[in-house]
Amino acid sequence: MSAKPLLVVAGIGNGSGTGAATARLFAKKGYRVALVARNADHLNRLAGEINNEGGEAAAFPVPDYSYSATLSVFDTISAHKWNSEGPSELRVGVWNAGSGVRKGFLDVTEEDIVESLQVNVTAAFAFSRGAILKFKENSLDARGKRGTLIFTGATASIRGNVTTSTFAAGKFGIRALSQSLAKEFGKQNIHVAHAIIDGAILTGQGLERRSGEEAERYKNDLDVRLDATSLANNYLNLVEQDRSAWTWELDFRPAHEKW
Amino acid sequence: MSAKPLLVVAGIGNGSGTGAATARLFAKKGYRVALVARNADHLNRLAGEINNEGGEAAAFPVPDYSYSATLSVFDTISAHKWNSEGPSELRVGVWNAGSGVRKGFLDVTEEDIVESLQVNVTAAFAFSRGAILKFKENSLDARGKRGTLIFTGATASIRGNVTTSTFAAGKFGIRALSQSLAKEFGKQNIHVAHAIIDGAILTGQGLERRSGEEAERYKNDLDVRLDATSLANNYLNLVEQDRSAWTWELDFRPAHEKW
Amino acid sequence: MSAKPLLVVAGIGNGSGTGAATARLFAKKGYRVALVARNADHLNRLAGEINNEGGEAAAFPVPDYSYSATLSVFDTISAHKWNSEGPSELRVGVWNAGSGVRKGFLDVTEEDIVESLQVNVTAAFAFSRGAILKFKENSLDARGKRGTLIFTGATASIRGNVTTSTFAAGKFGIRALSQSLAKEFGKQNIHVAHAIIDGAILTGQGLERRSGEEAERYKNDLDVRLDATSLANNYLNLVEQDRSAWTWELDFRPAHEKW
Amino acid sequence: MSAKPLLVVAGIGNGSGTGAATARLFAKKGYRVALVARNADHLNRLAGEINNEGGEAAAFPVPDYSYSATLSVFDTISAHKWNSEGPSELRVGVWNAGSGVRKGFLDVTEEDIVESLQVNVTAAFAFSRGAILKFKENSLDARGKRGTLIFTGATASIRGNVTTSTFAAGKFGIRALSQSLAKEFGKQNIHVAHAIIDGAILTGQGLERRSGEEAERYKNDLDVRLDATSLANNYLNLVEQDRSAWTWELDFRPAHEKW
Repeated sequence: MSAKPLLVVAGIGNGSGTGAATARLFAKKGYRVALVARNADHLNRLAGEINNEGGEAAAFPVPDYSYSATLSVFDTISAHKWNSEGPSELRVGVWNAGSGVRKGFLDVTEEDIVESLQVNVTAAFAFSRGAILKFKENSLDARGKRGTLIFTGATASIRGNVTTSTFAAGKFGIRALSQSLAKEFGKQNIHVAHAIIDGAILTGQGLERRSGEEAERYKNDLDVRLDATSLANNYLNLVEQDRSAWTWELDFRPAHEKW
Repeated sequence: MSAKPLLVVAGIGNGSGTGAATARLFAKKGYRVALVARNADHLNRLAGEINNEGGEAAAFPVPDYSYSATLSVFDTISAHKWNSEGPSELRVGVWNAGSGVRKGFLDVTEEDIVESLQVNVTAAFAFSRGAILKFKENSLDARGKRGTLIFTGATASIRGNVTTSTFAAGKFGIRALSQSLAKEFGKQNIHVAHAIIDGAILTGQGLERRSGEEAERYKNDLDVRLDATSLANNYLNLVEQDRSAWTWELDFRPAHEKW
Repeated sequence: MSAKPLLVVAGIGNGSGTGAATARLFAKKGYRVALVARNADHLNRLAGEINNEGGEAAAFPVPDYSYSATLSVFDTISAHKWNSEGPSELRVGVWNAGSGVRKGFLDVTEEDIVESLQVNVTAAFAFSRGAILKFKENSLDARGKRGTLIFTGATASIRGNVTTSTFAAGKFGIRALSQSLAKEFGKQNIHVAHAIIDGAILTGQGLERRSGEEAERYKNDLDVRLDATSLANNYLNLVEQDRSAWTWELDFRPAHEKW
Repeated sequence: MSAKPLLVVAGIGNGSGTGAATARLFAKKGYRVALVARNADHLNRLAGEINNEGGEAAAFPVPDYSYSATLSVFDTISAHKWNSEGPSELRVGVWNAGSGVRKGFLDVTEEDIVESLQVNVTAAFAFSRGAILKFKENSLDARGKRGTLIFTGATASIRGNVTTSTFAAGKFGIRALSQSLAKEFGKQNIHVAHAIIDGAILTGQGLERRSGEEAERYKNDLDVRLDATSLANNYLNLVEQDRSAWTWELDFRPAHEKW
């Protein structure tokens, strides 16, 4: 019996963003989906939703994005007994976690910096290690790949700005990591990609922060904010790129975004 | 009767590269395909091939990539009587033309420079104008777009090197154009993208330049050169991006490419 | 008798910008200064001013920035009889010419494009050829250089924007050229640099375009606009970099510039 | 009695690199020099050397580049009694510390990552905070500045490579910080610059790693490696830029470097 492809996605938020949309889409495409985040309630709700719709998902909450917790979740996932029969092969990792305060530089505390580097960079190293070690066990799939690792970046991945010193330091760091990995592991048929999301994504949190007309526009006007499902479709396209033409970096923004 | 979507692709080479692969793929997806290049024989052969396989293609040779010839081909295309019934709507333009000598700087002649700027930049302006004027006549499609304009770039689009002064000057120029257009016309729901092809594409010409073991490897080893059909698939993905998440720039290279 | 160092600077405007400030500064530093531009009156006025202050400058008007006119001015300069005794050695070239319309893309004409590419790119190739051929005749100076070639760039050298398609296409092209030259001729101890001026320079023309309070601020507030003399000082610093540490690219902006 | 300008430079190595050369040069230019590094012996030796030559330097060893140690050294420096009379004003900070292992990704340990982020990024935040808080107390100097903060970067600041995942993550992070600071504090007349050193600098350590002909060439051939004194000269030029024309980023490489 052939192995079922497995997606691990870290960073689920409240279930309305890119990570969750990616999980839903890949589940529909036949992937088992391992959901990783800190909030077990959100994870369980999303896993339940996917399972109810005929997919196969499981929640793997982490106490935090420490190096060890982020790395060891891959073993927990490997040991998981899925509802359906047969083994899994980790084929896709999506690193969608991380966050950052926005503060003037002089308001930034040591804790802000350490937390940003920890959650954004150190944890991304651990996640990459976990995914790549599993990918290396795989044989080539039909597209000539052992696995695909996608990092969700932001405008702050390529541009520091007045209130983004800590967030940008973390996001630049992930971008460096992703480029190093793409160069080192391309030769082993492991595909690493970095997506620069240059705009606001429609999420539950984003909606809560807005009110009145702005909230309506944000909710309904597809020209002014990113749709998480669209990003998920694009992530699937990256996964489906065959080995002759891999993308390391690409940007995404809404049609009417000013940039 | 609803209009049929039309692709215009410029730069067909001998029918084995990105432009031709894009034409073949879009024809299969139901697009009428207008083929633009200087060599009428190559165009006719490709059009014939597509038509034989049930697609709908027509050849529009240009005497050269002068501004006027490149721009006026859009009128010729508009006036064309297609075999099947019904009107067309130009929905996709792919600028895949252009070329460049590789020479040490002191061997570069005035003619080399003028030719490179003409074929790469001025013609790309004309092509963009022709496409955008048509796109503006369209209503939004199901993805919230009036049209998609894709430029095929190269490593020389982002890096000048010792023998690429003229080629890079042209390719940098196109990249500037594509970014300006993306910013200006995004607001009008016209999507402009720039693809950086960072590696050798398997083409008939590329094959002729190699021999022996190198030719075999180039032909058969999907890890070391780009497949034009894969690029065409990626171009289709760009066209299918909905308005909430458009990519301006992305790179493509084979899995084992050193970069 | 040892040769006197010679600066050729192209692009003088009305004598209040970077080119003119560079000419004045290098004249004070003992360089003979060859002034190249289209407007003979401006050239003569600046040459007269420099000569009156004890420097040595001469005007070399070009009918236009065609390839041949731009290239042949180097021969005219070589043949020039300077007031003081002794031969000259071309040691520094500053390409400060070029210009660009700002127009929405659909208002851009073929003439705009061709003119922008001609003045910005083709002429820069000719100027580079003229300078580099002379540099190659030089022995190494005390800093291990045969010559320095500096290109004045702009924000549009690295970013296309809604009204800058033609200007950016030209400026990106020059940047490509400068990088190619830096890589090819560094090995021959010829230093090529590219300066990105990211902000408004205080010039006579700039002053005429403003009025009232804005004009006062522009004229007097050193925090909000660039001073041409400061840029000239920085160009001198580039020229004085010894061969162990050459800069290809650097940016300049006023302290309070938003970017 | 007017205050004497003070330079704080962190990262001294064994006294043969950029930090030490900067200290020597600024001492000659009349700056008091505060030397910060982990190795007290190296610091004391360099301070002694500078003082013997008529400059004024003092050693401020830190136990490590923890946030608190790096930040509190600024108070220690403020409290220092210099040999000569009169108060000091911190006018220049040079962050030249940091380091990174070069390892294949799978050999990178959690400790490597945490150490790299700590030494490169967190410490740079602390150093920046210490410097900027002092700069804000200054009045504008003759060039319209309150202070200049320079970060020494590397090729790894802009490019991840196969063995540089941790080093590049740190260096990218510093670059993000420097850009954020440049944008936020330019408006307060504080100048922040980022120098990309793209090549090997001649240092004692570098010399030890080479032998035979390679060591000779590295030592004597100014075309193939960077001279720390040349970099120091360039840092002085950055400090002397007046407020109308500040550079955020510039690169440095030897004339014959391949790039």
